[in-house]
Amino acid sequence: MERILVKELRNYDDKVIMISGWVHRIRRLGKLAFIIVRDRTGIVQCVIDTKNIDIKGLKLESVVEITGVVQKKIGIDEDVELWTHSLVIYSGVNEDLPIEINKENLEINIDTILNYRVLALRNLKINAIFKVQAVLAQAFQGYLEGEDFTQVFSPKIVSEGTEGGTELFEIKYFEKKAYLAQSPQFYKQMLVGSGFERVFEIGHVYRAEEHNTIRHLNEYVSLDLEMGFIKDERDIMNLEGKLLKFMFNSVKEKCGKELELLQVNIPEIADEIPSMRLSDAIEILKKFYGRTDLLHDLDPEGEKQICEYAKKYLNSEFLFLTYYPRSKRPMYAMPAEENLTHSFDLLFRGLEITTGGQRIHNYEQLKDSIASRGLKVESFKDYLQVFKFGMPPHGGLAIGLERLTAQLLGFKNIREVTLFPRDRDRIRP
Amino acid sequence: MERILVKELRNYDDKVIMISGWVHRIRRLGKLAFIIVRDRTGIVQCVIDTKNIDIKGLKLESVVEITGVVQKKIGIDEDVELWTHSLVIYSGVNEDLPIEINKENLEINIDTILNYRVLALRNLKINAIFKVQAVLAQAFQGYLEGEDFTQVFSPKIVSEGTEGGTELFEIKYFEKKAYLAQSPQFYKQMLVGSGFERVFEIGHVYRAEEHNTIRHLNEYVSLDLEMGFIKDERDIMNLEGKLLKFMFNSVKEKCGKELELLQVNIPEIADEIPSMRLSDAIEILKKFYGRTDLLHDLDPEGEKQICEYAKKYLNSEFLFLTYYPRSKRPMYAMPAEENLTHSFDLLFRGLEITTGGQRIHNYEQLKDSIASRGLKVESFKDYLQVFKFGMPPHGGLAIGLERLTAQLLGFKNIREVTLFPRDRDRIRP
Repeated sequence: MERILVKELRNYDDKVIMISGWVHRIRRLGKLAFIIVRDRTGIVQCVIDTKNIDIKGLKLESVVEITGVVQKKIGIDEDVELWTHSLVIYSGVNEDLPIEINKENLEINIDTILNYRVLALRNLKINAIFKVQAVLAQAFQGYLEGEDFTQVFSPKIVSEGTEGGTELFEIKYFEKKAYLAQSPQFYKQMLVGSGFERVFEIGHVYRAEEHNTIRHLNEYVSLDLEMGFIKDERDIMNLEGKLLKFMFNSVKEKCGKELELLQVNIPEIADEIPSMRLSDAIEILKKFYGRTDLLHDLDPEGEKQICEYAKKYLNSEFLFLTYYPRSKRPMYAMPAEENLTHSFDLLFRGLEITTGGQRIHNYEQLKDSIASRGLKVESFKDYLQVFKFGMPPHGGLAIGLERLTAQLLGFKNIREVTLFPRDRDRIRP
Repeated sequence: MERILVKELRNYDDKVIMISGWVHRIRRLGKLAFIIVRDRTGIVQCVIDTKNIDIKGLKLESVVEITGVVQKKIGIDEDVELWTHSLVIYSGVNEDLPIEINKENLEINIDTILNYRVLALRNLKINAIFKVQAVLAQAFQGYLEGEDFTQVFSPKIVSEGTEGGTELFEIKYFEKKAYLAQSPQFYKQMLVGSGFERVFEIGHVYRAEEHNTIRHLNEYVSLDLEMGFIKDERDIMNLEGKLLKFMFNSVKEKCGKELELLQVNIPEIADEIPSMRLSDAIEILKKFYGRTDLLHDLDPEGEKQICEYAKKYLNSEFLFLTYYPRSKRPMYAMPAEENLTHSFDLLFRGLEITTGGQRIHNYEQLKDSIASRGLKVESFKDYLQVFKFGMPPHGGLAIGLERLTAQLLGFKNIREVTLFPRDRDRIRP
């Protein structure tokens, strides 16, 4: 008999069918047992007559195959249950569960969740997080393919860092030293110049940062794009607005059940996301929040405050901050007047989720910029090659997939939205 | 003026428009110059009257913006050219090109191609390889999403290897030692058991193999999938047949121009890909090719020979080999009779492109299997956890993206179809 998914059961009223899944809950009532079975599409109650079917070996989380008749639940038209004919245990459980998977909210701390990550993922709410995350990644890809971007896979084993060698994980690469890539930045620029013009990558990036905060991971998924023949960073910002709109609409369309479980509202994105200069944001924070301590950048508190301001006065949960000072941006950022750059951050609900901007495309200017940072031009020879032979004006951005997921779904600790996080202390499971 | 792409020019007959791209070729004829401009969508000839427009600074591969009138080429109805009004150089070229980008075939060896990878990618044929590769990856994802698979991102920084510690790249992870993941094998199994049931991942995997062959890379992209509630490995093989059919049809649909350039025919895939036991394949090789030296596995030559046989007698460019001996498969492979396993390889045009099979889902059996290999059960504790608490019958496979691309497009050296390959000697560019 072919397996029927739980979500399809209502199409099989009065029919004998087979389901399979995990035992989510067990309740006994005299000679009857009510077993709730969970598969990837939902849960259903199976009524078992224990005179005929032995359920002694059955424990929570056993994997079972159940055959029975689909019946409408008395009084509830849309809901069905299964009157069990036979039950097979595929995979038994002999130990007590370390966590209560079937609770609505697990009510355990993040370390326990991560220690039992795979079991915790069986909890419906926790599972839903990663369904949403998958749709975000899929929509990122889908939108950009529609805009003629080519998906690329750049190496994560690199011989030099992008920023001059700090915060890199070192690898023993046979006789050589190599490093884990901090970002695909150089490669995506090089690939724009290699004729693809528009590229994107979904891949891991690595930061050997010593600090251990709720906003940082040492390995995370970066949604990267880079695009040639732009006028300036506004082209990238406009693209990101449309991209995020598409991504959020995909989540709305495909994750109705998950959003309900997580009690999340997807924010509207205006056709044009509001933007302001970083210096103006700092002025606002001084005036409205008494933040006289901020000079050339925002701290996490400042990000929260300016987002609060944007929500109140600009009616937006998103805010672009633009024209970051040169000192706060890498050597490839396109300079603007007064030691500023053609760059931006995108803040969402109090957290930076994107950094982007226009890049320098002139070879001499780029070499000078590298040298002006005290870096050795020679170390960037592979990167620089393409700039000697015709590089279009270009720019791009990177979105942290975990940060975006966390902000969208309302989680404070980024580890909650990372399947198997790697941080200062954790490399397991 | 908004940029028009070269492929769209035929819709602008007699109109004044603007294009931008790289200078692909320059030819002078008296007072006229004929410049071929290349953008991501194609090439077009621009006619320039050098009495009015100075082209002295113009070199091959300069990035230009050209405004002019679109004109049908005399005698060729479908083709257009641009009569140039003005020309702006975005990005000049001051050095001689190290390779002749505009040749039909580059005619340089693979090391030179890789040393100048980014410039080589501007060659139309080389560029086309990676357009096809992107479509393969996209179609892998698209098909599996349609089959209710969830895309996952598993960590590449791991504390243990999947096979007991050989061929791993070591990372300095703060005070600890960590390794680069050889495959997402354990994680994808764990995620099947975490309730997703069906997962896929597109990501890098790492093999610290010392040998340097045309078939191996030390970093490559693995298209991985894993699926719960299967009957046996046949379910996975059937899925792969449909998946590959979808992927190849996508390439046919979306990459007409690229396939023409590369002169490649996409093979038909039968509804059921032929399969034979490995032991039968070895018998056939003995009988038809005099290969008395093969015992429990095929060598690269044997793979070629059995594919030749399959093409001739089974009319298929694909061939599944099944029932590999336990000694040739990892500890998680589901045992079959006579020391065999429920596993398979898929060969395509003489090369293995997939390894897959059913996995052990019983906790005790898996522990015994680990111990029987002389491995420490304790080292696999994170992996084993989920097997204690209800694991469905499951299986999966991994396709090497670069190998699939190479075989499909007819390249012998896998480096040709890898943007920035990492091998025994190469970690640059």
